Amino acid sequence: MKIYVTGAATTKFGELWAVSPRHLAGEAVQKALADASLDKKHIQALFVGNMLSGMLGGQEHLGAFFAEELGLSAAAFKIEGACASGGLALHNAVNSVLSGQYETVVALGVEKMTDHKPEDVAVALMGAGSDEERQAGATFPGLYAILARAHMKEFGTTEEDLAAVAVKNHFHASLNPNAQFHSSITIEQVMHSSCIADPLKLLDCSPISDGAAAVIITSDKKQATRKNSVQIIASTVATDTLGLAERRSLTGLAATQTAGKKAFRITGITPADIDVAEVHDCFTIAEILAMEDLGFYKKGKAAGAIAKGETRLGTSKNLVVNPSGGLKGCGHPVGATGIKQVAEIVEQLRGRAADRQVKNANIGLTHNVGGSGATAVVHILKK
Amino acid sequence: MKIYVTGAATTKFGELWAVSPRHLAGEAVQKALADASLDKKHIQALFVGNMLSGMLGGQEHLGAFFAEELGLSAAAFKIEGACASGGLALHNAVNSVLSGQYETVVALGVEKMTDHKPEDVAVALMGAGSDEERQAGATFPGLYAILARAHMKEFGTTEEDLAAVAVKNHFHASLNPNAQFHSSITIEQVMHSSCIADPLKLLDCSPISDGAAAVIITSDKKQATRKNSVQIIASTVATDTLGLAERRSLTGLAATQTAGKKAFRITGITPADIDVAEVHDCFTIAEILAMEDLGFYKKGKAAGAIAKGETRLGTSKNLVVNPSGGLKGCGHPVGATGIKQVAEIVEQLRGRAADRQVKNANIGLTHNVGGSGATAVVHILKK
Repeated sequence: MKIYVTGAATTKFGELWAVSPRHLAGEAVQKALADASLDKKHIQALFVGNMLSGMLGGQEHLGAFFAEELGLSAAAFKIEGACASGGLALHNAVNSVLSGQYETVVALGVEKMTDHKPEDVAVALMGAGSDEERQAGATFPGLYAILARAHMKEFGTTEEDLAAVAVKNHFHASLNPNAQFHSSITIEQVMHSSCIADPLKLLDCSPISDGAAAVIITSDKKQATRKNSVQIIASTVATDTLGLAERRSLTGLAATQTAGKKAFRITGITPADIDVAEVHDCFTIAEILAMEDLGFYKKGKAAGAIAKGETRLGTSKNLVVNPSGGLKGCGHPVGATGIKQVAEIVEQLRGRAADRQVKNANIGLTHNVGGSGATAVVHILKK
Repeated sequence: MKIYVTGAATTKFGELWAVSPRHLAGEAVQKALADASLDKKHIQALFVGNMLSGMLGGQEHLGAFFAEELGLSAAAFKIEGACASGGLALHNAVNSVLSGQYETVVALGVEKMTDHKPEDVAVALMGAGSDEERQAGATFPGLYAILARAHMKEFGTTEEDLAAVAVKNHFHASLNPNAQFHSSITIEQVMHSSCIADPLKLLDCSPISDGAAAVIITSDKKQATRKNSVQIIASTVATDTLGLAERRSLTGLAATQTAGKKAFRITGITPADIDVAEVHDCFTIAEILAMEDLGFYKKGKAAGAIAKGETRLGTSKNLVVNPSGGLKGCGHPVGATGIKQVAEIVEQLRGRAADRQVKNANIGLTHNVGGSGATAVVHILKK
């Protein structure tokens, strides 16, 4: 059985004071349905990726909540795995279609973060970490700073190398009308931005964001051939310890390595076959780790390559990474990110990505991480 | 492809002050693995049903959290749908095995409620309801009281009829060593217990509980034939509006009706074929609604039948309902309930339910509800 994406949509990402989660989810799903030329009555199940609605808003039961809001007569689920909630929602959606239990389903990622005090959001996000990390007062910038320091020590990665990731992704975001940030930035601006958790500066960090994204997947060939659909050829998930202290290595994420290898093994393709990727750059170091852990570069080689522009629109020869702007430039409404990544790859493979279109994009990959790497989700899509 | 349950286990349910969610989950999964004679290295994915850990404990990311705790090298997910979280976790587990993505997986339900102030738990549980209900200060006893009043008005159901459900389920619980309550009660005791939300009294309400349950499911025939396994022949989910005000009827739950009909249609069996059922009796009225909505009795006929002992161990001729004691007598750690129900049916079909064994139990059904009926999950199992 083949799994097709027939519709995909992303709302504007950003500080969206005037809209509620209902509006964001509604907009994303309605646009995805319109994109698939599908009436909502054909949707048999809804998979909602969300992390923070319970902790920050007191609203759980989001599956039924959004099914009602969207007027869907469907089975409905909330799937949560911290910042990988969107990717995990899609994974379960894919499996549910492969199972034959449902034919056509929606995976929706949605998060509303800016209605809450930033310190409350920071505390809630630590719900993704280990007990010990939370009790020690760690925050995610601090945890990723530890990963950055380890990488710098082992491979000579520099703060300028980290900054180059942000510069690339802000450039890409400047071409994406849905992105939270539209200004290009320079290495100097990153280097001179406030220190958040040494060596990470403000411009090494993805922002707090609101937004939603939705994709419609089906096993129905008729729907798929009617539209400019793309196939999901791999959907893999792996886990690791929640806390950094329990890991064997701090210079890579084992969950990413496991999920990536499985995805390549299933499909029989190699990293060299990937034309465009959306990877989880919650902090600049995370993109460097992802490029190495997914096998695009050997350990210690990604930072220099990114800084040379090898994964940048316009200067890349093989692979463009985070054409949407990534979490850094496009924004990171946590539960929405994993779905937005897939929506971006779908647009790229369809050749509809306008100013940020990657040339000859035939095969794409998404990579979504929960916490500091306790969960990793990889999807591979092809035209 | 057939889906087999090869291992099932439930911890003690109750006010378990001395143990943490880690311990509860560990005990349930270790016992289920031992029951299946399976090493944990064969577990490929973990589906965790939980509602309140984020809101009450600040811990999300429970998939990876418990995978680490249990030492599983597995994909992992938290599935949430209020009090139906356990049932939804199993539904996604079943689909993931049917998909071929995984062969052997664990569905784990776990909840720790008694570490928190009851008023905080009551507020958190309202995360399952609609915005309007929460803002109006409604609580779940109040919402189910509205359903009870509607049923009493339309069908002449009495407060004594409601009480009879509690009496039956406490009797069953008195035979279940894992149940929260071990005392039989009388109609008079229910009638004279404190009024919580008229017409519901304290003994019409399921308690606040701690507990966990786990089932191991597989598509591997070798594992299944080696053990005294049972089959899951239907797993269905339906949704309805979160709030009561938006419903067409208050004398039945449409989601239960839809999920039940689908389960019977898929399997080609009828309610008369079911020998034993675990249904969602969060309040006594809920069991009456479930018996009618699932098609065991016509509307208005269940209350009298239950009061006559038609679904009670020892006096039933066809169908025993809630031999575990149900949510009322066995306890209701919300995320664990849907899995505990299945574990109970597995024990019954295997003929291992000791003092509470239902004679000639060949086909069983479970019914798990989220909120006041916005989510319903039905599973049918057979020997």
